[in-house]
Amino acid sequence: MPAAYDDLLRNAANYIPLSPLSFLDRTADIYPDREAVVYNERRYSWSEMRERCRKFASALKKSGIGKNDTVSLLTFNTPEMFECHFAVPMAGAVLNTINTRLDAATVAYIIDHAETKLFIVDRELWPVLEAALKTCESLPEVIVIDDPSAATQPDLPQNGIQLYESVLASGSAEYRGEPLTDEWQALSLNYTSGTTGRPKGVVYHHRGSYLMSMGTVPSWGLTPHPRYLYTVPMFHCNGWGHAWTMTLMAGTIYCLRAFSPKAVFDMIEAHKITHFGGAPVVLNMLASAPDEDKKSFDNPVSVMTAGAPPPASVLEAMAEFNFDVMHVYGLTETYGHILQSAPQDDWAEKPITEQAELKARQGVRFAMTDNVDVIDAAGHSVPHDGETMGEIVIRGNTVMKGYLNDPNATHEAFKNGWFVSGDLGVIYPDGYIQLRDRAKDIIISGGENISSVEVETTLYKHPAVDLAAVVAMPDEKWGEVPCAFVELKGEATEVELIEFCLENMARFKRPKRILFGELPKTATGKIQKTALRARAKSL
Amino acid sequence: MPAAYDDLLRNAANYIPLSPLSFLDRTADIYPDREAVVYNERRYSWSEMRERCRKFASALKKSGIGKNDTVSLLTFNTPEMFECHFAVPMAGAVLNTINTRLDAATVAYIIDHAETKLFIVDRELWPVLEAALKTCESLPEVIVIDDPSAATQPDLPQNGIQLYESVLASGSAEYRGEPLTDEWQALSLNYTSGTTGRPKGVVYHHRGSYLMSMGTVPSWGLTPHPRYLYTVPMFHCNGWGHAWTMTLMAGTIYCLRAFSPKAVFDMIEAHKITHFGGAPVVLNMLASAPDEDKKSFDNPVSVMTAGAPPPASVLEAMAEFNFDVMHVYGLTETYGHILQSAPQDDWAEKPITEQAELKARQGVRFAMTDNVDVIDAAGHSVPHDGETMGEIVIRGNTVMKGYLNDPNATHEAFKNGWFVSGDLGVIYPDGYIQLRDRAKDIIISGGENISSVEVETTLYKHPAVDLAAVVAMPDEKWGEVPCAFVELKGEATEVELIEFCLENMARFKRPKRILFGELPKTATGKIQKTALRARAKSL
Repeated sequence: MPAAYDDLLRNAANYIPLSPLSFLDRTADIYPDREAVVYNERRYSWSEMRERCRKFASALKKSGIGKNDTVSLLTFNTPEMFECHFAVPMAGAVLNTINTRLDAATVAYIIDHAETKLFIVDRELWPVLEAALKTCESLPEVIVIDDPSAATQPDLPQNGIQLYESVLASGSAEYRGEPLTDEWQALSLNYTSGTTGRPKGVVYHHRGSYLMSMGTVPSWGLTPHPRYLYTVPMFHCNGWGHAWTMTLMAGTIYCLRAFSPKAVFDMIEAHKITHFGGAPVVLNMLASAPDEDKKSFDNPVSVMTAGAPPPASVLEAMAEFNFDVMHVYGLTETYGHILQSAPQDDWAEKPITEQAELKARQGVRFAMTDNVDVIDAAGHSVPHDGETMGEIVIRGNTVMKGYLNDPNATHEAFKNGWFVSGDLGVIYPDGYIQLRDRAKDIIISGGENISSVEVETTLYKHPAVDLAAVVAMPDEKWGEVPCAFVELKGEATEVELIEFCLENMARFKRPKRILFGELPKTATGKIQKTALRARAKSL
Repeated sequence: MPAAYDDLLRNAANYIPLSPLSFLDRTADIYPDREAVVYNERRYSWSEMRERCRKFASALKKSGIGKNDTVSLLTFNTPEMFECHFAVPMAGAVLNTINTRLDAATVAYIIDHAETKLFIVDRELWPVLEAALKTCESLPEVIVIDDPSAATQPDLPQNGIQLYESVLASGSAEYRGEPLTDEWQALSLNYTSGTTGRPKGVVYHHRGSYLMSMGTVPSWGLTPHPRYLYTVPMFHCNGWGHAWTMTLMAGTIYCLRAFSPKAVFDMIEAHKITHFGGAPVVLNMLASAPDEDKKSFDNPVSVMTAGAPPPASVLEAMAEFNFDVMHVYGLTETYGHILQSAPQDDWAEKPITEQAELKARQGVRFAMTDNVDVIDAAGHSVPHDGETMGEIVIRGNTVMKGYLNDPNATHEAFKNGWFVSGDLGVIYPDGYIQLRDRAKDIIISGGENISSVEVETTLYKHPAVDLAAVVAMPDEKWGEVPCAFVELKGEATEVELIEFCLENMARFKRPKRILFGELPKTATGKIQKTALRARAKSL
């Protein structure tokens, strides 16, 4: 009767729904007096942080917030933002962190789409919410975070608004949170940047975020008690999940309201920061900071970078600061990072430019990622030749539940047991995946596919190029041709850069036009190619 | 309609059953040429190791092994033992590793109880299996591991036996394993030492072992590519899960067939070992090795110890070798370690004896452990005073499915949402748990649990024995050894009775001393073991 193994059933002692909320209790139990969160003069131990989370969660419950209610946040990386990563789901509700650079119309759209029941806003951003509330249909309750460090202190209405600290003070420290009965329950809601129309609401669940943290530890090589500088906005994929991961590791989280290179260097020095993260554009800002602001460090600092491949020049500059950069890849739909350019033993011996090329690839799967492949139109894996392009597809427990209230988009996102990323890439003989383009960023010129990333990579090799973005420009003869937008850090003319491209890549891939000037960027530092495409069309 | 969050369902891309088998594919994909397993002159890369596992799993499938079939192993820590941790469950079967020191009668009992379909045995242990097969009812197929390093090479029968390498060679490297559809599926079967008579079969599942590995990493501070010396027998809780955990970390596993202090020191030096494990008795053997065998090391070696609290003298000796000892606690029923004496920042400044006292406590929960408490008879937590004793109870995803074919024992093991350990302990004001009294009848000898009831039962089989009581006696080398107190009804000497035990049970379970005389009894005639324990201590 081999089936006897199946007679043994789950019970309350041997089957516990996975949830990142469990990290807070364990860390506060074991390290109650260790510093948890530091923000300017405010310092909270893990025991204090847990008490604040419990009180705020209890206050939410008292005010009628419960299971599957959406609580939206428009706020910066302050302690309140961190607390809400625990307090909101403790009450059974869904945490919806919104990009602080969004306009009122988009915020209004999100409030209605997410059916926001409670909105927590930093006072500095109240005018955006105020405008949004005038147009949206829902009427959420509003709680304001009144941070004395804010750049501006706009007036608040006299009625109908509560202050975060008063609400928190009204809660009970005895509250233990709603019991979680299903690890598939929604935990958070993250809207995509919506460059192609309306933003979509990506839903995360407790199981996924638990595993995101658990898998990040072995793959990033985290050891207990990291000192993490929160440069990555927590509204972006819940800050890559690090609010929960750093709690798991009983680290100390250093909050940063507004990014500046000087602030980052100063904080790394003052707090002996061991880890931080940022898009390559953020690293680039550190590299090109004034010399008097820069610092280098005796102990290596681990830096996770995502959003674009870091150029060799940036990696070289980071090495001088003693920053050890790990390039990762992911999407809002995958809770953040699911691929990493995991270093191999022999990379360190290679020339720095070759190292940079290897590290600039998106890489191999994280420990919690079941599988990532690059497939052709027929669904077959492309050959591992570093040349044949296909679509990057992903399978794993950190793939979203789906898009909220959007069955069509959800249906289209999943095909044949994969989440289809919309990104195009290749696989190298060593199994490392390289992103070649967003499907929509590919330039089709005379029937040939040109990867805008490849053209950008070539431009980055020119010493005068600081930032480069390449998009399709309509062309009578070829259909489309590459058009480059460049921010310079040295001197170069359009003709010089085109000649440089001719020398360094296939002729048909060279940009036909190069325009100079500041590039439009999103809140997370991503270059806004949609805007550039519009400009290229009008040329 | 807040319930819209619940409209988003699991699919093949976003819900993957958790399994430690997934670690092998990921590590072999990313680090195909890194060394995986080293044993004497044999060295396998991760790509080779995966191929061997696939081939052996395929051969198992061809021979009719499938879901929920029991495959039993009686073998040492050789590469085959490691491979079976993947190959057996890849075929859907359940891995049952058996203590190599058990006697034929107990092995026969396990074969019948587990309904073993295939038995894999090291040639050196063939005589034990041969004897077991004469008495058991089941007739499993037999595969023999023929290791040239074995201490003895007993003759094998000419028919009915296959050699491991031939079976492996007959398998296909194209095999990908049976698809896992339920993470609750049985993965392995580990027999307890049978504290109250017969051994019980503890069933692990895929989800639990996956989380055991994932939770060990942050709590033990493992970083990529450990060099792990496998001193802990893989038949103990699947070697504390480290076969899987080290695969997750893309480490190198150094196999050790037979423990000796010299071999351990030599291997640590030769292979730059970073991690190993062992009971305090094993550490004690290292500490008391001849000076010419000892070595100390420039780089710290992390050592996990379990089974008993390490004495201060042992911790001091370990520090001299540059061994960083982490004391952990767990049971077969919890997949191994679930508590750890996690160090606090201020411990390092304390005197070494105080440090030893702190580290000797069983400690606080691992990252994958939901909760551990000490409760009184009414089920309430005891005060955190370091004095009030209660029973240690455990809740988490690494608590067993239950006992195979033993609904009564399974029912009794779970109470009010807890697994009840049978161990008594206290909680200190800092939340650290300390074991005070093991389930009283257990003797822990060289890391092995010996049931006093079992020894007594054997003694009772001797015609001259009228009453027998066995308790633990302190022993410098083994920690504890059995000491028997006997009332005779016929004639027998101490030597005669010890020889009788040797003939009727595993050698390591025999009493080291036997004392004759009237036993102290309670009013109701129960033997007072407490008094006997005191006498044994003073011997």
